[in-house]
Amino acid sequence: MSTVNSITERDNALFEAGIKLGALYHQFTGSPVNLKTVQSLEKAIAESISVQPFVENISVRIDRDLIRARLNNEFGYCELEGRMLDVVLNMRYGNAMVKATMRFNRELDYPLMKIEEISDIV
Amino acid sequence: MSTVNSITERDNALFEAGIKLGALYHQFTGSPVNLKTVQSLEKAIAESISVQPFVENISVRIDRDLIRARLNNEFGYCELEGRMLDVVLNMRYGNAMVKATMRFNRELDYPLMKIEEISDIV
Amino acid sequence: MSTVNSITERDNALFEAGIKLGALYHQFTGSPVNLKTVQSLEKAIAESISVQPFVENISVRIDRDLIRARLNNEFGYCELEGRMLDVVLNMRYGNAMVKATMRFNRELDYPLMKIEEISDIV
Amino acid sequence: MSTVNSITERDNALFEAGIKLGALYHQFTGSPVNLKTVQSLEKAIAESISVQPFVENISVRIDRDLIRARLNNEFGYCELEGRMLDVVLNMRYGNAMVKATMRFNRELDYPLMKIEEISDIV
Repeated sequence: MSTVNSITERDNALFEAGIKLGALYHQFTGSPVNLKTVQSLEKAIAESISVQPFVENISVRIDRDLIRARLNNEFGYCELEGRMLDVVLNMRYGNAMVKATMRFNRELDYPLMKIEEISDIV
Repeated sequence: MSTVNSITERDNALFEAGIKLGALYHQFTGSPVNLKTVQSLEKAIAESISVQPFVENISVRIDRDLIRARLNNEFGYCELEGRMLDVVLNMRYGNAMVKATMRFNRELDYPLMKIEEISDIV
Repeated sequence: MSTVNSITERDNALFEAGIKLGALYHQFTGSPVNLKTVQSLEKAIAESISVQPFVENISVRIDRDLIRARLNNEFGYCELEGRMLDVVLNMRYGNAMVKATMRFNRELDYPLMKIEEISDIV
Repeated sequence: MSTVNSITERDNALFEAGIKLGALYHQFTGSPVNLKTVQSLEKAIAESISVQPFVENISVRIDRDLIRARLNNEFGYCELEGRMLDVVLNMRYGNAMVKATMRFNRELDYPLMKIEEISDIV
């Protein structure tokens, strides 16, 4: 048995926040990167996602220490991995605001996407 | 001014639904495809997304007519485009259920991701 | 100083072989996968790349042991990584044949793409 | 019947050139973009591919007119498509140099990857 609920601005803000983080992850992980190019990749990812609907703002930070740790092979570059990403995303849908993050969680050994805060503009 | 709200199972179900659709879109669009291979691509996409957390079930349908329309070039294949996808996704987070879809919207000329239904298991 | 050379079928066969392996890698790595879904992913990757120009045949094998090793997190799935892939690709351009592979190289700690054999159909 | 040939620096330069163009295409097409963000995406793509082995230099240009043509929907952005890309890539493997391009070919209606020049450093 289930009860059906109407769909609110808050619901849509959360759904859209998820879409953006899922998109970011699967579009850009795998990109070749090293310490000289990490900054242009951060900027391009943030700007790319920022053009999508309902994004108020987004910050993208890639873990340089982890890049450095990956550069032990002889080729001098690695790939962007989910665990390198630290993303803070603010979404607005109507009067609903959602802050969501993607950040590597060491206990779970997992690049965790998480709702940080939901608020209403009043 | 804003008021802060606590985060519910419903919120998480919606956020997770968005993640899956954003991931699906940006992971698999661009894949080479033709009419002989469309079925294995549909199956792989559905199975791939189904292993992610909180997915109850997912169906993926790729528009054969649109593939056919793209095959006018001399190479006999095209790429998977967002507008070819018809996806129905059911998510469960605790007692919250969300049904979400991705489907090409002709009026908007856009592969629209949409919350179709939110319900509680009681 | 350099000397310019004319472009042969052999040259094109090698160039096209590289295109296919680069495409495969960057299209499909990152796909969610587990032991139940690995077979449909292998099949979809092989069929997808097979529709591209000049591909005679392709085999794609994903390392189940490495998937198993990645499933230590609580979520029961992982992502397709380059090092999981074992690909054998045969290309034909005119009378030139190229066999190329992508295979994890333990010494280099790198998913190496390599020309295995070049031959002419006589 | 076939005859087997030994593998030269020229062969490897061509194979590696193909890898880079295939990688570029399937890594970055699908990225959300508009006229304000196109420059950072161009820069990130060029820098990302430039870190890979054997790349001497690369230039990436995205067609602003085509972006403009795609912005008719109500959302104010589009996705990077293969046909928007104009890429010039110079590779070096030992003493072999290869210049390769990816450029939309209107007659074929196809984003064509092509060997432009092969030369030896003498």
